[in-house]
Amino acid sequence: MIKPSPASAPARRVPVVVIGAGPAGLTVANVLRAAGVGCVVLETESRAFVERRPRAGFIEEWAVRALRERGLADRLVERAQAHSACEFRVDGARHRFRYAELTGERHFVYPQPLLVTDLVREYADVRGGDIRFGVRDVALHGLDGDRPSVLYTDPATGDRRRVDCEFVAGCDGARGVTRSCVTPGRGTVARHDYGVGWLALLAEAPPSSDCVVFGVHPRGFAAHMARGPEVTRYYLEVAPGEDPERWSHDRVWSELHARLAVAGAPALTEGRLIEKRVLDMHSYVVEPMTYGRLFLAGDSAHLVAPIAAKGMNLALHDALLLADALVAYRGTGDDRGLRDYSAACLRRVWEYQEFSQWLAELLHGPSSGDPFRAGSARARLRRILESPAAAATFAASYIGKDTAS
Amino acid sequence: MIKPSPASAPARRVPVVVIGAGPAGLTVANVLRAAGVGCVVLETESRAFVERRPRAGFIEEWAVRALRERGLADRLVERAQAHSACEFRVDGARHRFRYAELTGERHFVYPQPLLVTDLVREYADVRGGDIRFGVRDVALHGLDGDRPSVLYTDPATGDRRRVDCEFVAGCDGARGVTRSCVTPGRGTVARHDYGVGWLALLAEAPPSSDCVVFGVHPRGFAAHMARGPEVTRYYLEVAPGEDPERWSHDRVWSELHARLAVAGAPALTEGRLIEKRVLDMHSYVVEPMTYGRLFLAGDSAHLVAPIAAKGMNLALHDALLLADALVAYRGTGDDRGLRDYSAACLRRVWEYQEFSQWLAELLHGPSSGDPFRAGSARARLRRILESPAAAATFAASYIGKDTAS
Repeated sequence: MIKPSPASAPARRVPVVVIGAGPAGLTVANVLRAAGVGCVVLETESRAFVERRPRAGFIEEWAVRALRERGLADRLVERAQAHSACEFRVDGARHRFRYAELTGERHFVYPQPLLVTDLVREYADVRGGDIRFGVRDVALHGLDGDRPSVLYTDPATGDRRRVDCEFVAGCDGARGVTRSCVTPGRGTVARHDYGVGWLALLAEAPPSSDCVVFGVHPRGFAAHMARGPEVTRYYLEVAPGEDPERWSHDRVWSELHARLAVAGAPALTEGRLIEKRVLDMHSYVVEPMTYGRLFLAGDSAHLVAPIAAKGMNLALHDALLLADALVAYRGTGDDRGLRDYSAACLRRVWEYQEFSQWLAELLHGPSSGDPFRAGSARARLRRILESPAAAATFAASYIGKDTAS
Repeated sequence: MIKPSPASAPARRVPVVVIGAGPAGLTVANVLRAAGVGCVVLETESRAFVERRPRAGFIEEWAVRALRERGLADRLVERAQAHSACEFRVDGARHRFRYAELTGERHFVYPQPLLVTDLVREYADVRGGDIRFGVRDVALHGLDGDRPSVLYTDPATGDRRRVDCEFVAGCDGARGVTRSCVTPGRGTVARHDYGVGWLALLAEAPPSSDCVVFGVHPRGFAAHMARGPEVTRYYLEVAPGEDPERWSHDRVWSELHARLAVAGAPALTEGRLIEKRVLDMHSYVVEPMTYGRLFLAGDSAHLVAPIAAKGMNLALHDALLLADALVAYRGTGDDRGLRDYSAACLRRVWEYQEFSQWLAELLHGPSSGDPFRAGSARARLRRILESPAAAATFAASYIGKDTAS
């Protein structure tokens, strides 16, 4: 990954290089740009690709508020559907859980491609920021000094280019290069394997409920998550490593009906399956999230299995902290934000990981085949449905309120 | 276990045979006796033995209230110490958790031998109840009919005796005979192995804190639990199956100091170790808790690892439900309590099992050697210390309030 060959063109100088144009990198870049801190964004994929990549879809209200304060959520607020409840289906009955009544906060359903499209437009087209798509062979140098540099290959010319900088924001996700600069040997990577697969489906069908539905069923967990008026996400718990091709259209819908059916609920509306992938549910956390002048943000630092839709929210949390810390340092020399960055991010990261694991057990226990896990999981669900204090605690964690800032 | 040999003496008739003179059996017997429902209690150990056997020590306020209403808690209320807080020690700091302020309820610290002594005295000496100590070879017959019988060998004469009855209360604990009448094949036994051992210690030393102390430490969990003015219980997390003889007086105290030391807390007061056992932490639940005319109560139906001191409280919950159901049936023929008995008990059983498992992970995660478990466990503890809603939920579960009745 680290290439010793010198750049074939003269180096640019810029305070911050942001690697990766996902929600984290684009948020960092937009905030820097608005504050007049020079930066360049390097992305290995094309603009069209990042604007279409399907990923997360639920943004917590604190994050929407924070984006809005920075002028980054106008279209989101205009177009996103706000969710204030979720529904558990178990034993043939439905239990509506109105978390917004308990917390005053909602989820905003806004698919990641839309958010990324907005953030690219704002950064590149409105604020005139520098962003290079399709770069190859990104390599980082001198991270442990105060003058790191980033090399990459220009896709148009094939030239090797170098950017000298003061800081690198590593926002290039779970398979990017920046994560490998922190590990191994320089920190710890904590990992958790849930031992289950989720068959992730996108159906060309309108939503069959106005909110997220969690189906807790002895045959396996199933979920319904609205994405937009014409596309709906579904999940089916399957064996880890399962071949998605074993799940035909008919088998998928028959299983979704079986696991999500309850008396009184409208039947699911079927539709063509336009995405069908198996996620081997796992999570990791890189500690610390920094190495010298490199600061990781988002999936490069931590992956959270999509059980409670926490991943993009953590990415935004990191990005906002990092951008504010860089702006403060560049403006006044105050380096407290940068020094505290890793610890401040990790508090929320671990909180969300813990909550996701807690919820995963509630969802997967009844189909685990282990009667102790099943009994405990059912008690866990019963408690949040019956105890007001437990409901308030669940609601706060689910919407990300009362958590570390 | 089932002996075909006929009894060598004529059978007695009594509505209820209670097998086992622990907290569950003695509570059932006392309530029946007060209501004029005839019963006999059979116990394989001697009276002196059951009055001295060290076991649990924390009784939740709802249980104290229920015992008191039945005239079974006068001495308890007079002599027990009431606890309203516990303390977490982690990273060299202490965090007092005042659960009574959040729930209005307290724990009563009253060692099981004292409670058993009170209940035996009340049943046998005050209410004139029939109780046979030291019986051998207890065997149950005809549980699936409406005239079951219980056989046992009289310790004084060696005679085989038979009691015909309508109902059998199986209160003879984890190693008793009644549990094996329900399983295997007639129900399920859900099991959970925590994968850790607890070295259970009784020290001839005054308590070193006025409340339960949970020490969360990378070297392993440790706990301090007051028992009385001169005896204190300590726990040390050890490998499962560990030989207690490997833990000398010096090693025990040095490890307790290391794991429980925090700035500002008084040093532990050492004392002679009068009990030193390794508990392989595990739990089980028998479902259903009934088979024909046999009703299990307490440890015969469920064992809960002593993480949150739930075992005796569950035994009392079962016993009170069972006694009330038997009294109702004998009085008016109303059999709803008996029909609902298993489900009503199991709601609280699973709630307590789930909570104990949740707390166990908080306590054991940081010493598991797995950085993901450690990070999650620390987030779990932080949440109950920092979020008012999470604190209220923890407090309610810890004291057994807002739970299934």
